[in-house]
Amino acid sequence: MNYVRNAWYVASWSHDLKPNAPVGMHILDEPIVLWRNEDGVLTALQDRCVHRMAPLSLGRCEGKKLRCMYHGLLFDRDGTVVEIPGQPKIPDHAKVRNFPVVERHSWAWVWMGEAAGADESLIPPAVGLDHPDYILGHGHLDYAAEARLINDNLLDFSHLSYVHAKSFGAKEDWAQERPKITTLERGLRVERWLKSESGIPGRSIDKPTDQYSYYDFLIPGVLLMTGGVFPAGTAEALNYARPNIDEALTGVTFTSQAVTPMTAKTSRYFFSWGPHRKHGDAALRDTLMGIAGMAFAEDRTIIEAQQRVIDATATPRIMPTSADRGITLWNLMIDKMIKAENAPLRQVS
Amino acid sequence: MNYVRNAWYVASWSHDLKPNAPVGMHILDEPIVLWRNEDGVLTALQDRCVHRMAPLSLGRCEGKKLRCMYHGLLFDRDGTVVEIPGQPKIPDHAKVRNFPVVERHSWAWVWMGEAAGADESLIPPAVGLDHPDYILGHGHLDYAAEARLINDNLLDFSHLSYVHAKSFGAKEDWAQERPKITTLERGLRVERWLKSESGIPGRSIDKPTDQYSYYDFLIPGVLLMTGGVFPAGTAEALNYARPNIDEALTGVTFTSQAVTPMTAKTSRYFFSWGPHRKHGDAALRDTLMGIAGMAFAEDRTIIEAQQRVIDATATPRIMPTSADRGITLWNLMIDKMIKAENAPLRQVS
Amino acid sequence: MNYVRNAWYVASWSHDLKPNAPVGMHILDEPIVLWRNEDGVLTALQDRCVHRMAPLSLGRCEGKKLRCMYHGLLFDRDGTVVEIPGQPKIPDHAKVRNFPVVERHSWAWVWMGEAAGADESLIPPAVGLDHPDYILGHGHLDYAAEARLINDNLLDFSHLSYVHAKSFGAKEDWAQERPKITTLERGLRVERWLKSESGIPGRSIDKPTDQYSYYDFLIPGVLLMTGGVFPAGTAEALNYARPNIDEALTGVTFTSQAVTPMTAKTSRYFFSWGPHRKHGDAALRDTLMGIAGMAFAEDRTIIEAQQRVIDATATPRIMPTSADRGITLWNLMIDKMIKAENAPLRQVS
Repeated sequence: MNYVRNAWYVASWSHDLKPNAPVGMHILDEPIVLWRNEDGVLTALQDRCVHRMAPLSLGRCEGKKLRCMYHGLLFDRDGTVVEIPGQPKIPDHAKVRNFPVVERHSWAWVWMGEAAGADESLIPPAVGLDHPDYILGHGHLDYAAEARLINDNLLDFSHLSYVHAKSFGAKEDWAQERPKITTLERGLRVERWLKSESGIPGRSIDKPTDQYSYYDFLIPGVLLMTGGVFPAGTAEALNYARPNIDEALTGVTFTSQAVTPMTAKTSRYFFSWGPHRKHGDAALRDTLMGIAGMAFAEDRTIIEAQQRVIDATATPRIMPTSADRGITLWNLMIDKMIKAENAPLRQVS
Repeated sequence: MNYVRNAWYVASWSHDLKPNAPVGMHILDEPIVLWRNEDGVLTALQDRCVHRMAPLSLGRCEGKKLRCMYHGLLFDRDGTVVEIPGQPKIPDHAKVRNFPVVERHSWAWVWMGEAAGADESLIPPAVGLDHPDYILGHGHLDYAAEARLINDNLLDFSHLSYVHAKSFGAKEDWAQERPKITTLERGLRVERWLKSESGIPGRSIDKPTDQYSYYDFLIPGVLLMTGGVFPAGTAEALNYARPNIDEALTGVTFTSQAVTPMTAKTSRYFFSWGPHRKHGDAALRDTLMGIAGMAFAEDRTIIEAQQRVIDATATPRIMPTSADRGITLWNLMIDKMIKAENAPLRQVS
Repeated sequence: MNYVRNAWYVASWSHDLKPNAPVGMHILDEPIVLWRNEDGVLTALQDRCVHRMAPLSLGRCEGKKLRCMYHGLLFDRDGTVVEIPGQPKIPDHAKVRNFPVVERHSWAWVWMGEAAGADESLIPPAVGLDHPDYILGHGHLDYAAEARLINDNLLDFSHLSYVHAKSFGAKEDWAQERPKITTLERGLRVERWLKSESGIPGRSIDKPTDQYSYYDFLIPGVLLMTGGVFPAGTAEALNYARPNIDEALTGVTFTSQAVTPMTAKTSRYFFSWGPHRKHGDAALRDTLMGIAGMAFAEDRTIIEAQQRVIDATATPRIMPTSADRGITLWNLMIDKMIKAENAPLRQVS
């Protein structure tokens, strides 16, 4: 699996993790149990008891600890076994891996690299459900496809013209015009002006406009996008530079999306979307979520089909087009980061 | 997969391929998209976009062309990419494989070998649904089994006495007596006289008869069978040679059946059957189709079970009997043809 | 698959094998057909026709014989082919393997080693459904897990405190106290006194008692357990030795359980349980079967989950505890027996 390990992966919506209800999931093929103790504190441990490999996600929360419900080994938050029923001595190696976990922006983020390197400043600045400026709907979707293919999809919006002609009402211009792509320290920025756009279904505007959108796609696979509708001529007046979103006529929304590789061929896709308070209300949020539901199903249909074709092909081969520049830059960045992760550490003398 | 490539495989009933509705299927493990354009012309292409391997069978017909609905590459009938949205230059290798396809006898036949060798005279002379002499019902059935096992079944009718004792009311004589088998250029001819046969359920005759049947089993796996019921004594009078079918008392029917290997372990089985106009009507056709439905389900039950046993056996091994002569001759022919296909081509100087 | 071959495996409840109704199943990955002929005699053969590998379990009983219903080969009880339709000569090697099979204690037991070694005295002394002393309920359950994990479960009852806290109302003492374990010639004996036990739900006793239970766990994976409730103080008075079960106050039951490895990752679990006639009736039997139904579902949930974790782990590793002594002794015994089975036989001169 060709994914960066030194990164924060979204494991769950924070509110889906109730106290005393351990949840099992996979990230990068690692079985992980997420559990919130009586104090509300979240812990992420390897979901595999050291004793006989039963999943701890079938375990029972006891105060601040978690008990394996096969033979009763009790685990502390750091993964250490603190009780073996009927056995006074606990071996030193009786310990499962603990994964750093942080709750932020309504998501539970798990660090998949060495714990020592976990740096909270690397958590992408997603917009949480409680953000004062936005009225957000949310959800998640499971894919029978590798996360890489979903990342590819999000790195190239030329597919909007074909996959989302119906849901987003996207025109050919998404495929015809290439966005401006800038490399960030841990990701890419993708900006685009589309002129005379008439908006998306349910939000049409009765005169020509310039529509601006921009998103950051950040390690390990988090898309943060906003934009708005401006008077026709704005794009040229600004020489196609970034406008002040606060000055948009209408149509300012924000979406946070996170792609988490569960196993080699399965992924979980978390998303929120909704209007800026100045440009919409709960009714518009619900309209947008209806559109998103249709659009994300369109994506999943083509991506899972693509996965099946790849799996059935002895020697998979692609032919990049000029629309793939973002994907290419992203993959170079990923390859470089993985290479750095695998490099032998130099001694600091 | 041990199948001949230089052959016409049935891909579909012709009438199941509607205009502007691409259909994906597999033949010999190759993903193939079949699409009929606005002119009614049928095309068969590799069902895998050169760009990112999305299936073209999820694409959209545009006039005479087919567009991949992931990122919009447009394909001509010969498999060439003629448009990449937003990219003026199209690489020379932007092309998927085109398979020769011919509609004949109500079926769409695809040539799986090199296109240059596609010879329409090799299409087996099946009887189409519009044939003036026959009143035919038809259908198809999918198997979770390799085509080879279905071919084996069709090459040895001794199984009728056991598998089809109920549906066809077959007696022991099918298993006790060996048919006459003749080798053809691309297949086998199997002829059989059964004496004092009382017919099949619903078509019984109240006096002893001689029943003759014969079929050709042709490359790549097409069975064409006819026969009829004659006065008792005809077989001996003819010294068991082929009778004139036109002189049959009753019971003349025709069945065309085609076995198509989709993947290594899945197959599609196409069939038609019905009476000669002189010997029956639409009601008899429907009776026969009911019998065929039961009989083909009996075959599928035993063959899929056989496949499961084979798959669970480390070193599969068979013990041929004298009833297997047709299978043995067929496999020798197949092996020889495959060997010829793989032989290095001699230069013509 | 790490299982002893020279042993009797339970293949079925005897009464589930009706005359003229062949049944297919797997033991140690071997396909086996069990069939009862017109005389009521049971036979176990390899479930794979020598001809073309069709399963004989789809065959037809004919008098004392079994006919393959693909092409009609007829098998005698010893596995020899005695008829090939339409072929006078039968090859010497036309024979499938015959497995010794014995019906005893309401079960059909199949010997998986060389037939010559089949020794009926090795059949574990289970209690059959017709035993005069017990009123037994029974059933079976299929597992998507290897039999070894079910054996592990049955060899260590410390799991009762966690897996069966609800169904059996088991307290912590099952996990805290270690049983007495004795090695038998082909198995282990596990004995345990629990003091002041208040019984299981539905059978509570209103004063402190001592509860004794003991089971033999016998090759290849058969558990035979009994026990009873004694006046408080009995355990100390006996210095924790085995009591006379006939002197129990109440609570004497018997359970026979057999774990059969079907394939590498599937198993069938046969069980009976019920009270001694002096300590209960059919109503109590039904109560116990209700409890067992809940408990066996609890076991299956954790064991199948454990199997999935093992399967998803590149290098499975366990950390035995002091509760695992029975499992360790059992596995040493199994390893030794397998080694002996595989040793080259010495010539007797």
